[in-house]
Order: sequence, then C-alpha cells, then structure tokens
Amino acid sequence: MEIRFSTGIWVFGAGVERFAPTGYKPARPIVELIKEAGRVEGLQGLEFHYPTEVNEENVKQVKDALSTANLKAVAIAPVLSQEAQWARGALSALDESTRRRAVERCKKAIDIARELGAEILIIWPGREGFDFPFTTDYRKLWNNYVSSIKEVAEYGPEIKVALEYKIEDPSSYLLHGSAARALTTILELRMQGIKNVGINVEFAHAKLAKEYVPEAIVLISRYNALYHLHLNDIFTEVDLDLFPASVHLLEFAELLYWLKETNYSGWFGLDLFPRYLDAAEMVRQSIENVRAIYRALESIGWERIRKVIDSNNPIEAQKLIRELLR
Amino acid sequence: MEIRFSTGIWVFGAGVERFAPTGYKPARPIVELIKEAGRVEGLQGLEFHYPTEVNEENVKQVKDALSTANLKAVAIAPVLSQEAQWARGALSALDESTRRRAVERCKKAIDIARELGAEILIIWPGREGFDFPFTTDYRKLWNNYVSSIKEVAEYGPEIKVALEYKIEDPSSYLLHGSAARALTTILELRMQGIKNVGINVEFAHAKLAKEYVPEAIVLISRYNALYHLHLNDIFTEVDLDLFPASVHLLEFAELLYWLKETNYSGWFGLDLFPRYLDAAEMVRQSIENVRAIYRALESIGWERIRKVIDSNNPIEAQKLIRELLR
Amino acid sequence: MEIRFSTGIWVFGAGVERFAPTGYKPARPIVELIKEAGRVEGLQGLEFHYPTEVNEENVKQVKDALSTANLKAVAIAPVLSQEAQWARGALSALDESTRRRAVERCKKAIDIARELGAEILIIWPGREGFDFPFTTDYRKLWNNYVSSIKEVAEYGPEIKVALEYKIEDPSSYLLHGSAARALTTILELRMQGIKNVGINVEFAHAKLAKEYVPEAIVLISRYNALYHLHLNDIFTEVDLDLFPASVHLLEFAELLYWLKETNYSGWFGLDLFPRYLDAAEMVRQSIENVRAIYRALESIGWERIRKVIDSNNPIEAQKLIRELLR
Amino acid sequence: MEIRFSTGIWVFGAGVERFAPTGYKPARPIVELIKEAGRVEGLQGLEFHYPTEVNEENVKQVKDALSTANLKAVAIAPVLSQEAQWARGALSALDESTRRRAVERCKKAIDIARELGAEILIIWPGREGFDFPFTTDYRKLWNNYVSSIKEVAEYGPEIKVALEYKIEDPSSYLLHGSAARALTTILELRMQGIKNVGINVEFAHAKLAKEYVPEAIVLISRYNALYHLHLNDIFTEVDLDLFPASVHLLEFAELLYWLKETNYSGWFGLDLFPRYLDAAEMVRQSIENVRAIYRALESIGWERIRKVIDSNNPIEAQKLIRELLR
Repeated sequence: MEIRFSTGIWVFGAGVERFAPTGYKPARPIVELIKEAGRVEGLQGLEFHYPTEVNEENVKQVKDALSTANLKAVAIAPVLSQEAQWARGALSALDESTRRRAVERCKKAIDIARELGAEILIIWPGREGFDFPFTTDYRKLWNNYVSSIKEVAEYGPEIKVALEYKIEDPSSYLLHGSAARALTTILELRMQGIKNVGINVEFAHAKLAKEYVPEAIVLISRYNALYHLHLNDIFTEVDLDLFPASVHLLEFAELLYWLKETNYSGWFGLDLFPRYLDAAEMVRQSIENVRAIYRALESIGWERIRKVIDSNNPIEAQKLIRELLR
Repeated sequence: MEIRFSTGIWVFGAGVERFAPTGYKPARPIVELIKEAGRVEGLQGLEFHYPTEVNEENVKQVKDALSTANLKAVAIAPVLSQEAQWARGALSALDESTRRRAVERCKKAIDIARELGAEILIIWPGREGFDFPFTTDYRKLWNNYVSSIKEVAEYGPEIKVALEYKIEDPSSYLLHGSAARALTTILELRMQGIKNVGINVEFAHAKLAKEYVPEAIVLISRYNALYHLHLNDIFTEVDLDLFPASVHLLEFAELLYWLKETNYSGWFGLDLFPRYLDAAEMVRQSIENVRAIYRALESIGWERIRKVIDSNNPIEAQKLIRELLR
Repeated sequence: MEIRFSTGIWVFGAGVERFAPTGYKPARPIVELIKEAGRVEGLQGLEFHYPTEVNEENVKQVKDALSTANLKAVAIAPVLSQEAQWARGALSALDESTRRRAVERCKKAIDIARELGAEILIIWPGREGFDFPFTTDYRKLWNNYVSSIKEVAEYGPEIKVALEYKIEDPSSYLLHGSAARALTTILELRMQGIKNVGINVEFAHAKLAKEYVPEAIVLISRYNALYHLHLNDIFTEVDLDLFPASVHLLEFAELLYWLKETNYSGWFGLDLFPRYLDAAEMVRQSIENVRAIYRALESIGWERIRKVIDSNNPIEAQKLIRELLR
Repeated sequence: MEIRFSTGIWVFGAGVERFAPTGYKPARPIVELIKEAGRVEGLQGLEFHYPTEVNEENVKQVKDALSTANLKAVAIAPVLSQEAQWARGALSALDESTRRRAVERCKKAIDIARELGAEILIIWPGREGFDFPFTTDYRKLWNNYVSSIKEVAEYGPEIKVALEYKIEDPSSYLLHGSAARALTTILELRMQGIKNVGINVEFAHAKLAKEYVPEAIVLISRYNALYHLHLNDIFTEVDLDLFPASVHLLEFAELLYWLKETNYSGWFGLDLFPRYLDAAEMVRQSIENVRAIYRALESIGWERIRKVIDSNNPIEAQKLIRELLR
C-alpha cells in the first residue's frame, strides 16, 4: 500500500478557539503557510477551506505556491460551520435562503477544486443538526440535507463528495453522527443514481461515535464509500486533533492492516490542532507515527497477521500484540 | 394514535444475571406467567423467546393460555445470544455450522410466529460482533451476517423481521450497534428486493448508541423501517430496562409526539427487568407513565406543539416544556 | 429556600469560539452589558472574569454600573484558561514562572472581589491537567496545583474559593475532573487548617463527569463544601451551556429538592452560551425554567416528596413523577 | 519492581451471567480449581469470594490446597452484590437488618482472611447506590455506607480494606464510582483515626469512570491508598474483564512506569472473565502481556523514560512511543 500524506493548511494557522480567542499564534499569509508545509519531509498534499483559505481571489497564487512547494491540492472543504451565519444549519438549514447560500458555496468550492485539480470535496456537517429538544422538524431537516447533498453531488459528478461525519460539536447533535448515518444517505442517493458521495473518516470523530475504526473502515468499504481519511487521535471526549496513534496505538495498528487489506488507495490526511506545538513538527511526528506502526506490521508480516486474524482466536491475538513491542 | 401495549413474557420470569446467578425470583411455568400478564390492565399483547419460552412442545398450550388471557402474540425472538453456544456469534458466526444452527432457529421461530399469529420476528444481535482487537475478519462477519438475515427474511416474507440494535453486550462490539447500522443492512437488502426487514427500537439501546430517540425514530421512518418498539429507560450506561420515562422524561415526551406525527401504528412493547420489583406492577406503572405523558401532550394540543416545533425557536420550546409541568 | 439568580456577564458578550472566530455578536463595553443585565427581571447578581471583564482600570466604573443596575457582584473568576499563556497549565503549571503568574492573578482577582464585595472566587481549572500520554509528571502537577490553591486560599481567608470542576476541555484531561476529585483537595487542605475552599457545581460539567447531580450535591454538602452553582444543561457531550432543565428536566426537579433539603443558601448562578439567541431572553427563560420546576414541586408538597423518597420504593417514585406533569 | 501475580479463583469457575444463565463451563469443586491455578506458570497468589468460594466449612481444605499448589491467599472478597438479598444495597442498605448482615459478612470474611493469611479484604460495592431518580435519601445512604466501612475496618485493623470502585453495574449508580469518591471516604475516616482503608484499582472500572489509569494511580498514591490492583481491560463500555493490555496497550505501558515510579509493592491481581476461553490459558497470556510491556520499558530504560516525561514535551513523547514498537 502506498501511503501518501496530506494535511490541512489550517494546521499551520493561528488556532483561534473559545479558550484562545486571539489564537495561539499570529495569522500569516496563505502562501507563507504553503511554503512552510512544503518543507515537511514526506508531506505530498494539502487541503483547503473555501473561501477562508483559498478563494477566487487567491486561487492562482495558491496554485503557484503549491507547484513551487511540490505539493498537490487534495481536497477542498467549504466553510459550512465556522461562521455565525451557519449557526442554525447550512445544507440542512430550515431557512431556505441560508440553505441556498450553503449549496452555492459548495458549488463554488467545486469550481475551485477543479481549478486546483483537487479530487475531493469534504463536507463537514458540523451545523447540520440541532441544539435542543422540541425545536426541530427532523423530517424537514433530513429532507433539506439530503437534497442539498444531492444537488452538490450532481454539480460535480467527477468530484468525490466526502462526508466527514461527527456526532456533535459545534451543534449539539448532528444528523451525520456516525459512518452508518452517512451511509444511509449514500445508499439512498445511489438508489437515485448518484454515485459520487462517500465518506471522509476522521479518526477522532469515529471514536466519538463509539466506533472501532478498523471495523468502521471495513463497513464503509463494503459499500465502496471510503473516499478520504483524516488521521489524528483523541484522548478523552474533547476533539483536540492529537497526533495519530498517540493514544489509540493498537487500534491504529489494526486500522493500517485493514486499510491495506481493503486496498485503500486514497490519501492519508492529517487533521491536527497544534495549539502550543510547532505545526510543521507536529505534522512530521504524525507521519513518523504512522510509518513506524506500518513498518512494525510489515516486519511481522502481512501473512502472519492475516493468519492470526483468520484463526479467530484471542489467544493468538495476544501473541501478535506482544510481537508489536520491541 | 392508538397505543397498544405489549411486553415480553420474560419480564415475569426469574431474572437470572451475572450478579444474581440463581435469579431474583423462583422460575414458574409459562402458562402461569401468561395468566399473570393477563391480569395487567391495559396490556394487550405478549412477546416470547423461542425456544426457551415458547417452542414446538408448548405452543398449543401457550396459544390457549393467550386466548384465555385475552392477549395477542405480538413477537417471537429466537434466542441467539443467551446461550453459551452463541458465545462467538450466531447469525454472523465465522463457524459455518454454528451459523446454520442460528439460521435454522430463526426459521423455526418464524414457524412458531405463524402458529401464534405473531407478525414480528425480533432479532437481537447480541453476539453478532466481536470481543477483541486483531481477532476477526470483519468482512466475513458482515457477509455472513447479512446473508443470514436475508435467508431468514426470505423464509418468512409476510413476517416483519425487526432488528433490535445494541452497541455492545454481551459481546464487546456489535455490528448492528445503532439504528443507522441496521439501516445500512436494510437498504442493502432492499436493493436486492428484500422488503420485510426493519427495526425494533429499544429505548435504552438507542441511548447507548448516543441517539436522541425522537430523531432516530424520524430517520428510521424516513425508510419506512420502524417495525416495533421496546420502551424502557436507562440511568447510566448499564442496560437495566427501567420504567419508561423514569429518567428521560422530556425525551419520551418528544418521542411520543414524533411517533404520532410519523403515524406509527405498531405496538408499544415494554422490555423491563424488574429484579426486586413485582413484574406486574412494573408493567402497570410503565403503561401509566407512557399514558400520562401522552395525556399531557394531548392537553397541550398537537397543533400547539407542532407550531412550537415549526417555529424552530428554542425560546418557544422552553415555554412548551414548562407547559408540560403541573 | 430563597432562590437568588446571578449570571456571568460573559453571557452578554460576543461569543467567540473555534467555530465562530469573530463571535456571534459584536463586542460591547462592559457598562452597557451590565445595564442590559439590570433589565432582566429576577436577576439579582453578576459574575465577572478578571481581568478581561473587570480589572483595576474599570473596577470603579463596574461598581457604579452595578449599583445603578441594582445588581450585586457575586463572584470573580480569574482567567486561567482562556489565554494562550495558560496552554500548558496555570495553577498547576510545571513551568514555575507561569505558575507564579497564575497565583498572582488569583490574588489580584481576590483584591477585585473585595472591592466589589463579591464573596466567591471561582477557579475553573480548564488547563490544570495534560493533553497526551507520557508527557507529564503527575506528582509534580498535583503538588503544584494543590500548593497554588493553598496559597490563593490563604491570601483571602474570608473569600470562598470555589473549584469549578470539569473533566476535560480545553485540556484533554483535568485533575479536578469531578466533584470528588475537588473534594480530595478540599479535605487535604482542611487537614492543614485551610477551611475556605469549596466547590462550584456546573450542571453540565457534572454530567460530563457522569454524576447524577442531586446525589453529587448531597456528597458535597456532606463536607459543607457547596459554595456556588452554575446552572445550565447539556444535550450530548459538548459543553454548550444550554437553558437549565431544557434537557435533564427530571434531574433538575430532584436537584431542586435536594438543594432545599440540604439548606443550600448560596446563589443560583446561570452559566449560559447564547450563540444565536438573545442573551437577556436566554437568562429570562432560564430563570423561568427553574422557577416553574420549583413551583411544581412546591405544589406537590415537600412533605409528600420526602415521604416518597423515604419509602425507597420505585413504584411510588413513578407516581410522583407523573404528578409533576400537567 | 517485583511483579507478583495473583488472580481470582472465580476466573476458573463456570461463568454464569444474564446471557448464559447456565454458565459457559461446568461448575467444579474449589480444590480442583486451586490445583488448576497452581499449574499456571508465574501465578503466585489467589483471591476468593466469601462465602461462595471459601467459607468456614472448607477453609482448612482450601488452605491445604493452596499450600500444595504453592500459592498464597492474597485477598478475600465478601459477596455483597452477587446475591438477590443485596439487590437494594448491602453496606449502605437503608434496611438496617440487611446492613447488619452485610457488616457481619465482612467481619466473617476478615476471620477467614486471618485464617488463610490473606492481607487484603476487597469490598466491591456493586450494590451501594441506587437505581432510579426520586427513590433514595442519599444522605442516609452515605451515612450508612461510611459507618459500615468504619466498623469493618475497626474489626480488622491489621487488614487492608481495599475499596474496588465502579461507576455502575449491577446497580444503576454507585456511591464509590471513581477513585476520588473512594478517596473522600478514606480521607474522612483518616480524620477519625481509621488508617486501614484504601483502594483496589480495577483497570476496567477506572476506564468506566473516565480515568486515565496512570494518573489515577498517582492521585491514589498521593494519599498512600493504593492497596491492590485488578488488571484487565475493556473494549467498549461493557465490563468483560478482558486480557490486560489487549486494548489499552499504551496506557498499560504508562501505568507500569508509574507503578514503578511510585514504588508500588502490592500484588498484580488479574480479574478476568474467560467465557469461551480456557481460564488457565487466559491467565497465562495476561501475565505474558504485562511482562512483555514491562520488558519493553526496561529495555528502553527507566532513566530515558523519566527524562522524556520530565521534558513535558509531546514531541519527545511521540519518539518514545515509537521506541516501544519492534
């Protein structure tokens, strides 16, 4: 399996949050961030938010900077959550003019993706849900949401529309809270002939949904719907985008096995939130973590691992786990 | 909305568990249990496990007892978890002879359902999953599981096969852990022409899956897949089958609203674990809890509630919540 | 029980967060915010962050504005989390100069509290913990943290130092994650003669710690350590500071009962995050929610409730719950 | 650090549970179980329930069997949960005669401990709590519970009374749900001169309480209260007593480091639930898992690990994690 790493350009940004309203670092021009990303050994691709990071104004500049840095544009993520205008929903908004604005933003993001040669449109549905009991007509919410995704997917039939499910946050409760919830929409749209909607699995989000990620990957690939990965980790239940495998080491090991076994050929995206850490260093260490686990598996041997798994024997699995250790 | 209550005959049983290996109460003959159930005001139907509660030997006896007690047979649940033989899976078992036995059991349960006039076959997939990392070929597990469900559904095309999802327990991790995971199987089978597989929502299981049950009901009914309900409640994260609404009072209120709004016409099953409580009394109080909430909603007025929800305004929702109070 | 409501002046602020980097509303001068708070019927007190909301420069102005608005200063909360300088800890910081700065900030906050006549210093230890495995000497962390609290408490022996525990966020894992963790520190300090450290229970934080708040209140009051309340609610596991009782209606009812039963005489603080809602309206509705539940309990009668609880009978409890409904 | 392994004799038992009411294996005489345990390489001690596994009748027989098998009696755990009589509480029971019976059982268990030379009395408070809202006077519950523990501790001042906290199950909500909750009782009793009450940390229970076990160990050892360990693991939120480190590999590594660093000198108890696995083999593999991690840490070098932790640098921690891998 070829492992190609990408990361979000936002990883190199200021890091504004509720608990650091002015950010952890100064804001810097996008071209400078791309240049810095280009210096990270092993990093081959970048992902962007539209329009906050890339937009009609700076797209040429970004394209040139990517070319100079020898980086590929991998994915465009329209901003559908991180602005006050989406506080009550975007693609699922019960307010029709808001919903139209959200759909239009996605279409423009697809235009940008085409211009940059990015194959993936990431939809992170952080506001597609609700906040309180007794406030929402869930039927309309689902109808609006699925219609919007359909319209976006039809606008860019050659683009992979990747749903990045998350159970909650910033809204209290999200429609696409788990891999399987996203799959219901994907299967519904397939029955209507729409074939370019799939999933971006963010490791931490999968954990919040109580998924065991290796199994979730297999379920998604059962429907040929694994379009992208956002690797990171989570310690408790707050989504801090930590180094991949810095907590769930063993789960990452089995995840890599199953990505190989299911012939995953997409990117290994890294979605990180460095806060007080140096962004480039955090990306570097993340790449090293993934590579080190992969090397350990490789040195055990894929056939050996397959045999243990096929034995369906927890005793054999313990031996295998111990072989992972130095 | 007509509210017809059923309950599991097991509710009247001994209550053996890990922490009470000899049960909380003496075991009693099934006919006696049915007679006791018949005395609970408002109870109209019963559900049975096959073959531990109803089977080829006693089915006539059970039928007669039901008739005498003026109770309907609502659902049959084949035992696929509560025996050591299913410790490594039943319908999904990687061991083919085990899997065959599980499928055959379901078919026999369908035969019994036919004999009793029960319309629902409940599949509670408590062993359809795995216990440990690095022990399981998840692809085979899913393949086996979906094939088995298909075979069972085809055997009884006039029977509603209701998947009672649960996230874990007794196995560590279950394939059908959430409503949406069950829906992926349901949609996959629909694409193959199988139309009689749906869902039995157990309230407590939905909470373990981090679902907001009113919304989950709407999602399921989007696919016309809500076949049955198991109402109860959960206090923390241990599945103790408490009185419905004894903890999640407000959520039950919104649940009843949406059941009415989506024209649910099935049974209101009660799945309870009385332990030290009198079973009949627990069923009675459970019925009263549901009725009391329904009456409160009715007295507020469905149109008024609909208006509040349509307003999509959390302020209005607060006023509504206060109206629920005496 | 006299119910006096206070709220944080931050509730009226702009609401900057990770997903709304420029806030949901324009920033406004503190005096204007106080004036607005003064117009909320039933609100009698305010709480402030030091130095972002009240500080040496504006304290006189704030005092005058409070007096004009007929509001009492209830609590001062030194900012120990919401700035990048505390990213690696404040009162527990392993970096000694950072820790000194944090202690000094608390002392200055006490000076301000004295000037305003506020009796409570709220310590919200959102950075007193760690983010990753294998990065932290937990012994030093605890030592530093307890020493700092001790020093702060000794500086203001007449001030109630109220620890507002939270399990995580913004740091991954917090030392004072639960009521009982705060209690260990409180009891340790009592053995050393420090008697003015207690707890501020924030409802949502207690839920994140898997506490049943009515019981937690009783445990805390067993040690006479309940100094303050931050009432709000939580829907899933993201801390959004919703209207009190908008989700956990029944738990609020039992909470009010036990606050009365344990003779709680402190303030009913409201910690809310209005986002897209009008702040004043959200405070108003929150007060109404609490009052409505209290009235319902009162109309059932305290003696009746006490009798049900004393009966230790879940059947009787179901009847009581139904009496709460209209 | 010397690592001495013990396990519960129940691990070799039949394994009755709610989902296997007749158990996974045939019941066998206690002497036979001890003999089998004696054949497990590396196992040096055993733990027993009183009176179901050891009692006044068979204590001599057990003593002889232990001696023959060259095993030490490590701990006695009075049965306070796993019988219907404790359904509404044991040491905290609101029914005084039940509470007296529970206290007496503990005293008799201490007598047995003395006879067998076991130093630890394990109190697993699985019923010391409640099941429902509005049913319980929490003040009385706490009073009863702490009084009972005090009486038991005074009866055996040379015995280590080890509280095995758990957040829930079999009761819905338990008073000693976390390490810190147990610590509040321990500190309260210390103020009254009782010095022989401490904690038995069960790994899975700590995870249910959202604890990071390495940190919890340090908090407990801050109060010299770490009396015993029950090592195992947990996959989701169902307490299945899996092989230690079969899921939380990295956390076990840091746990072993901190046990060494805090000079833990007690036993490494293994609390396992083999279900369909061979008990002896499960114990063997569990011992191997712990040893393998310890060897990996040792080969990295304690000084090196200490340096990384002291650096308080997540980047260095990533390097260390990778060194754990082969």
